[in-house]
Amino acid sequence: MSKKTKKKDLKKSVVKAKAKVKAVKSVKKPVAKKAAPASAGKAKKGKYVYSWGDGRADGDGSMKALLGGKGANLAEMTRIGLPVPPGFTISTEVCTYFYDHGKQYPKELQGQIEDAVKKMEKSLGTTFGSTTNPLLVAVRSGARDSMPGMMDTILNLGLNDETVKGLVAVSKNERFAYDCYRRFIQMYGDVVMGVQKREGEDHDPFEATIEDVKKQLLGNAHAEDTALDAEGLKTLIARFKKLVKERTGKEFPNNPWDQLKGAVGAVFGSWMNERAIIYRRKYNIPTEWGTAVNVQAMVFGNTGDDSGSGVAFTRDPATGEKVFYGEFLINAQGEDVVAGVRTPEPVAKLQVKMPQPFRDLEAVRATLEKHFREMQDFEFTIQNGKLFMLQTRNGKRTGVAAVRIAVEMVKEKLITPEEAVLRVAPDSLSQLLTPIFDVAARKSATVIATGLPAGPGAATGKIYFNANEAEAAEARGEKVLLVRNETSPEDIRGMLAAEGILTARGGVSSHAALVARQMGKVCVCGAAALSINYDSQILTVDGKTYKKGDFLSIDGTTGEVYAGELKTAPSEIIQVLIAKTLKPEQSVTYQNYALLLKWADKYRKLAIRTNADQPDQVVNAVAFGAQGIGLTRTEHMFFEGDRIDAVREMILADNKADRETAVAKLLPYQREDFVGIFKSLQGLPATIRFLDPPLHEFLPHTETQQKELATKLGVSAEAVAKRVNDLHEFNPMLGHRGCRLGIVYPEISEMQARAVFEAAAQVQKSGIKVKPEIMIPLVGFPKELELQAALVREVAAKVIKETGVKIAFTIGTMIEIPRAAVVADEIAKTAEFFSFGTNDLTQTTLGMSRDDSGSFLPAYQAEEIIKRNPFATIDTAGVGEVIKIAIEKGRKTRPDIKMGICGEHGGDPDSVKFCHKVGLAYVSCSPFRVPIARLAAGQAALEELNAAKKKK
Amino acid sequence: MSKKTKKKDLKKSVVKAKAKVKAVKSVKKPVAKKAAPASAGKAKKGKYVYSWGDGRADGDGSMKALLGGKGANLAEMTRIGLPVPPGFTISTEVCTYFYDHGKQYPKELQGQIEDAVKKMEKSLGTTFGSTTNPLLVAVRSGARDSMPGMMDTILNLGLNDETVKGLVAVSKNERFAYDCYRRFIQMYGDVVMGVQKREGEDHDPFEATIEDVKKQLLGNAHAEDTALDAEGLKTLIARFKKLVKERTGKEFPNNPWDQLKGAVGAVFGSWMNERAIIYRRKYNIPTEWGTAVNVQAMVFGNTGDDSGSGVAFTRDPATGEKVFYGEFLINAQGEDVVAGVRTPEPVAKLQVKMPQPFRDLEAVRATLEKHFREMQDFEFTIQNGKLFMLQTRNGKRTGVAAVRIAVEMVKEKLITPEEAVLRVAPDSLSQLLTPIFDVAARKSATVIATGLPAGPGAATGKIYFNANEAEAAEARGEKVLLVRNETSPEDIRGMLAAEGILTARGGVSSHAALVARQMGKVCVCGAAALSINYDSQILTVDGKTYKKGDFLSIDGTTGEVYAGELKTAPSEIIQVLIAKTLKPEQSVTYQNYALLLKWADKYRKLAIRTNADQPDQVVNAVAFGAQGIGLTRTEHMFFEGDRIDAVREMILADNKADRETAVAKLLPYQREDFVGIFKSLQGLPATIRFLDPPLHEFLPHTETQQKELATKLGVSAEAVAKRVNDLHEFNPMLGHRGCRLGIVYPEISEMQARAVFEAAAQVQKSGIKVKPEIMIPLVGFPKELELQAALVREVAAKVIKETGVKIAFTIGTMIEIPRAAVVADEIAKTAEFFSFGTNDLTQTTLGMSRDDSGSFLPAYQAEEIIKRNPFATIDTAGVGEVIKIAIEKGRKTRPDIKMGICGEHGGDPDSVKFCHKVGLAYVSCSPFRVPIARLAAGQAALEELNAAKKKK
Repeated sequence: MSKKTKKKDLKKSVVKAKAKVKAVKSVKKPVAKKAAPASAGKAKKGKYVYSWGDGRADGDGSMKALLGGKGANLAEMTRIGLPVPPGFTISTEVCTYFYDHGKQYPKELQGQIEDAVKKMEKSLGTTFGSTTNPLLVAVRSGARDSMPGMMDTILNLGLNDETVKGLVAVSKNERFAYDCYRRFIQMYGDVVMGVQKREGEDHDPFEATIEDVKKQLLGNAHAEDTALDAEGLKTLIARFKKLVKERTGKEFPNNPWDQLKGAVGAVFGSWMNERAIIYRRKYNIPTEWGTAVNVQAMVFGNTGDDSGSGVAFTRDPATGEKVFYGEFLINAQGEDVVAGVRTPEPVAKLQVKMPQPFRDLEAVRATLEKHFREMQDFEFTIQNGKLFMLQTRNGKRTGVAAVRIAVEMVKEKLITPEEAVLRVAPDSLSQLLTPIFDVAARKSATVIATGLPAGPGAATGKIYFNANEAEAAEARGEKVLLVRNETSPEDIRGMLAAEGILTARGGVSSHAALVARQMGKVCVCGAAALSINYDSQILTVDGKTYKKGDFLSIDGTTGEVYAGELKTAPSEIIQVLIAKTLKPEQSVTYQNYALLLKWADKYRKLAIRTNADQPDQVVNAVAFGAQGIGLTRTEHMFFEGDRIDAVREMILADNKADRETAVAKLLPYQREDFVGIFKSLQGLPATIRFLDPPLHEFLPHTETQQKELATKLGVSAEAVAKRVNDLHEFNPMLGHRGCRLGIVYPEISEMQARAVFEAAAQVQKSGIKVKPEIMIPLVGFPKELELQAALVREVAAKVIKETGVKIAFTIGTMIEIPRAAVVADEIAKTAEFFSFGTNDLTQTTLGMSRDDSGSFLPAYQAEEIIKRNPFATIDTAGVGEVIKIAIEKGRKTRPDIKMGICGEHGGDPDSVKFCHKVGLAYVSCSPFRVPIARLAAGQAALEELNAAKKKK
Repeated sequence: MSKKTKKKDLKKSVVKAKAKVKAVKSVKKPVAKKAAPASAGKAKKGKYVYSWGDGRADGDGSMKALLGGKGANLAEMTRIGLPVPPGFTISTEVCTYFYDHGKQYPKELQGQIEDAVKKMEKSLGTTFGSTTNPLLVAVRSGARDSMPGMMDTILNLGLNDETVKGLVAVSKNERFAYDCYRRFIQMYGDVVMGVQKREGEDHDPFEATIEDVKKQLLGNAHAEDTALDAEGLKTLIARFKKLVKERTGKEFPNNPWDQLKGAVGAVFGSWMNERAIIYRRKYNIPTEWGTAVNVQAMVFGNTGDDSGSGVAFTRDPATGEKVFYGEFLINAQGEDVVAGVRTPEPVAKLQVKMPQPFRDLEAVRATLEKHFREMQDFEFTIQNGKLFMLQTRNGKRTGVAAVRIAVEMVKEKLITPEEAVLRVAPDSLSQLLTPIFDVAARKSATVIATGLPAGPGAATGKIYFNANEAEAAEARGEKVLLVRNETSPEDIRGMLAAEGILTARGGVSSHAALVARQMGKVCVCGAAALSINYDSQILTVDGKTYKKGDFLSIDGTTGEVYAGELKTAPSEIIQVLIAKTLKPEQSVTYQNYALLLKWADKYRKLAIRTNADQPDQVVNAVAFGAQGIGLTRTEHMFFEGDRIDAVREMILADNKADRETAVAKLLPYQREDFVGIFKSLQGLPATIRFLDPPLHEFLPHTETQQKELATKLGVSAEAVAKRVNDLHEFNPMLGHRGCRLGIVYPEISEMQARAVFEAAAQVQKSGIKVKPEIMIPLVGFPKELELQAALVREVAAKVIKETGVKIAFTIGTMIEIPRAAVVADEIAKTAEFFSFGTNDLTQTTLGMSRDDSGSFLPAYQAEEIIKRNPFATIDTAGVGEVIKIAIEKGRKTRPDIKMGICGEHGGDPDSVKFCHKVGLAYVSCSPFRVPIARLAAGQAALEELNAAKKKK
């Protein structure tokens, strides 16, 4: 057994003492169980501390910005009469103040804390620092959005050599009291005083001290912790204090008030630790929100077998099914459940083991859902048979569950369809499109283990046993499964890099499960058959070994773990819509999905188009609800088959006549491309962008390839090399591309126009309506568009005359360089539509090359110079402003001009919402993002309606 | 003798007949010699033809836009009583109509032309098409701005087999009449009917016909044209007509009205010929201006020795001296003088040869200057002792002359100082700074020939004998002298490419001289000792030969031609201001220059700063009037001496500590740089830009260099190669540069800040005030500047504390990416100044790489998509709008924020004027552009004042 696992086992040991702790009295019966009205509690200037207890609270559930999610909901639960141990919240304003004032506090704070502690003392009949009946507290962070496990927590605060005697007195259990005390010193020493493993040390210094004491007193460093009796623990406590003094030069603080001050500072300090920063970056949580600090009276789930701790969800967070879902550990503290160190039991088993607490819990579950009208994720502790609520929050869930819960809550009349639409994060829909294992492949595969299904979907990949190696492998292009005994916040980067996560321990609410679901990663946890040796990097299951780099496959919907690389199959939605291997009525998931999108579509103002270059892509996109093509990149077809030869011949031509000959060879290919696209669109419109990339992208760059090409074309290799060299550009992004090609080589635009119109005529003759929209790229000067539009119209007139088929078409342009935006009024004289090319517009507006920004963007996000990757989500303050300028100017000239976007941003929910806000007509995105864009667009419209209602 | 020169000789032959032409009567005495009031004449809707004659005119000198320069001034001269043959102008509106309507004319035009011809007939007592006393006319183009020799002209129009008899009758000179007739057919056949040399032909077909007829009639193809008598000319005329029929399939038009219609069409058509397009591009003349057509009664300078033609200037256009300057040819038509085929005599000689016409001419010269209050360039013809004025216009002049004339006209009280400031094109000042030959070098050099000093300055270069080769050589990086017998519009591109132009024939008003002066090129013309063999590409002078590619040197101020490459020396201004080898009182040129700039400075609102990186550059700039540094590129110093090693060490460092060590080595160098700059500024402010270019620019790119570097730094060659490779960027312009370097490597910014402040402290201790302005480049996000500014302030505080020297400084940013402009309000919260980096702002706003735009910019300018090179003159509609957004937003946050520009545009007059208009505080340009910017800024302020006055 490796040192690391041993350490974990050590932690597992549960304090067995059945202390009859009187510290926490029963909470009073609530006055009223009604929902709190919006800002029932009040934020006041100069008020930094908000108390709750005895059915009353200064704050309420609406005050998450000020009190953090945990603090606001503790207040809310108190208000609605749930059994919450009393306490108080230090508001997020203090966190902001703390960082703005060189880590100082507002002067009013100390007095307010003292008052709040007095209230707790009064409520519980205990006294902070009392040597006879001491008040002990837990100090926890609590940000506006939950950041599970990201920040520090300190339990059992208030103990010292004197007060511990009080705890002994009231609990009548000396060992329990001293165990609490040694745990407190260990946590506080680590978190607040920074006594941690140093470079070159193998062990955490506290753990090393424990082993040392055990060796000294028991003659065995590896004996169970429980073997240490109260006297042993006293020895250990003395050694811990010595350790702290040695390492920090300071005495461990005896005064509970000093302890409290230190703990509060540590929580605020943890807001800026690396883990928290990475987490915020991933989830776009602004630093300035800050965290609150919650100080709450301790309750103990570890006083014996009539005690315990658990975490539960009001519905299944993986599937969304309406079942009581959760788990608990008898005789354990809450942290043990979340840490995933011991695998807990399903919450249903509580019914047998503790019938009354279970009934109380069921009642709480019902109250919570009815009150919050959302699926809740809550923590509870049972102390000597009595239930206490420690937290509730909206439960994180998979995309599948999100859709199901939203739809079923509508059916239960708990929420409205509008609320359902707003409840589902659009990005999470991508989980519904995630592949599942191929049925045949699954049948012939070997299940080597089964764990808990914690993040749905099918994942296959090479196994790695630590986050760094997983990250490195992913960077090499490998598909990765991260395999761990359990995960901790340090593993976040590895989890991000992995296709899926597999753990040997921990339940469905363990860190691994929670984080995986949020990331939309496939996850199987608590697969107890797995035995992992981190040292030898070998996984053993049932006598068989799998080493680092071997393939495994996991099914996050069933919990099964397979040997080898399994073939995946499309999700149910894909099977219904695309593969047609399932009928709608065979899939509940599909039905929920369809209903939700139907509601979204009802409100949606934006049309959703797709970026597609090939007929099959078009068919998929239309199945997902695309209302046409927003971007066809005509050059994507240039690489297929022989046609690249004609393209290269065109580029190598050194005069117009030769170029025309080569271009003529391309015409039939392009026509055929467009015929396919028009047919698959079945009457929907298609925006067709003319040749955009610089010509050198089509030429071969190695000497060998150049020679081959020269032979093929019957020219010298030198001529080819020279042309490649001539076409080299220092900044291709800003070079000879877009309409600049069509201006210098009008014969290329002519060919493309002819291909479009000939194809249109042919398809229209077959009875399918065709709506081509010719899009000229990279326009910056009005005359560029004028010239290209004149050319297109001329070709159109010719083809219409030649074929006798009347084709309705429009001509527009991409707005993708800032100049186009500032002269949009002039451009709109010719352009019948604008399509914002937000990729290039971002590059030029920010002066930032997407391909090169990797060298500084990470530093920029770390420093919060740029909060979100501007190539993923529209930079509204910069690029967004430029877009607004173009919209305003374009409309001035042509009030009914059609405008949309066709950059990568078209499938990003926040960018879609921006597009709605600024009044675009459509967004265009890749086929698989169409459902996401539909939902985001529906939400945008609803958010606008709600904001308008609020104003009234 | 080559065929080409023979042809020219043939053209030289002058019609000797002394026809007593009565066609043109004396013009009536003027009613009033007063200046025409602004729009004395009137433009009327539907009026396309404007007549003049007999002291009256429909138009006047203010109507250049409508009538073209020539037409407006013919009207004006008529109005002020000068002897102008009558005629009429077809307005530029017709040209615009012509091109907008598929080369059709407005329907009213024909009737108006007929009326105008009737007026001429009435004035002269002749009749168009008369067989007894025919009216003959010249048809000439006339654009708003003069475009010398760019468009077509037809003389002697109105002749046919019948009317020629009338000309015989009134001239009593049959040979003269038939010579006029054959010249007409030749010109008309060429220009209107397109009978020109075809591919494969050696000769112009008309010239070939002449030789053929001479051979047939005289037995010698190379006899003088004059040897052909009237009968011979009749034979030639018949042959010409046959030639036209053969080549065009059409009869030569007999009807004078048809002739007139054809000629007018040809002139309008010539507006779009290639020469005219190139000329317009060079001088930024908009195509939509169009040309007018002038139809004027013929006068003949070729009727004998009491006739002649000349071109004169009211002052010397090369030096500006107030002398009667010009030249004439006895018994010749005006075209002969301008063509430079015969070298004419100085106008002063006319005093002896034709005393009365000379006196008349002197009177005209005085009248013109008094009336137009500008130096005039005019054409005259003397027909049988009587003076006629054919044209006047503001004379083109050298920069030296422009300054002198403007200043002296003020002294003469002809114009105000304000007018003087507005008269001198700012760019032309660069000619005053043009080098002259080094005195010692000149002494030891051999003068091989002397010509006319036609474009001042000293030029040295390899000789080329045709425009194409000159252009190609220049493109290879050679310094070129274009050497020609004479130049013609076809040579324009070659002249542009050359350092200087040397011709064997032609006077100071020849094409070569005229164009060279306008271009600011050095020019010596009419160096008769030169004998050029175009076939063998050899120049022979006095028995010595110089072949293509040999070096010659020319002095455009003295007319001397030297063998070999002569060392050049600074101009007088430079000698006074910089070299101090002349005292101000020793140079008239300097005095004029200084006075003019003093006047400009009086009105100027913009401060002028300079872009300088070294103390000597600073000293020069200050001598030219710079009021500080607007841009110091700190990295320009990185390449000097050993310091590049430290720079490379810094770049190759793979951790912060190593980087800090390397950076520390750079500190003393940078400090020393700044000490030098601060000292040379003597209290003026300095804007210092922090490191801007991407780091890879500093690394060696060849394998050998990389190995050398690796050895020097004691690392592996692979490590160096890898780092170079890692730093490679796809679009370096949009890459890791500017403040992005300072953000990722704050230690670099820290070092630069420390160098600035330590230098400032040191210099300030020595008693010189220092005003550093720290400029952070490439800011796009407000927080970039916040972070860098905080770092700079921290270092400043440290250095101030360390040295005890209080240093006042400001921190600002460059606005050089569009995002910075749209968030300028946010940036201005930190920035104390904005400096517009218009180079990069142009690249990003236009999405156009300066280095790569060569592949399409020429086509763009040809198509007039972009009228002016946006990297030379600010693109006001695009980049200008972005600048305006930044100004407005910046001022909203910080009303007194200082703003200026520091791109290349800072030295471009039109861009300077734009900066004035949008209210910037300063422009910064290279030291030698400072005087130009001063003048342009003065003009901008005056233009604004004038516009405001007009409004009142």
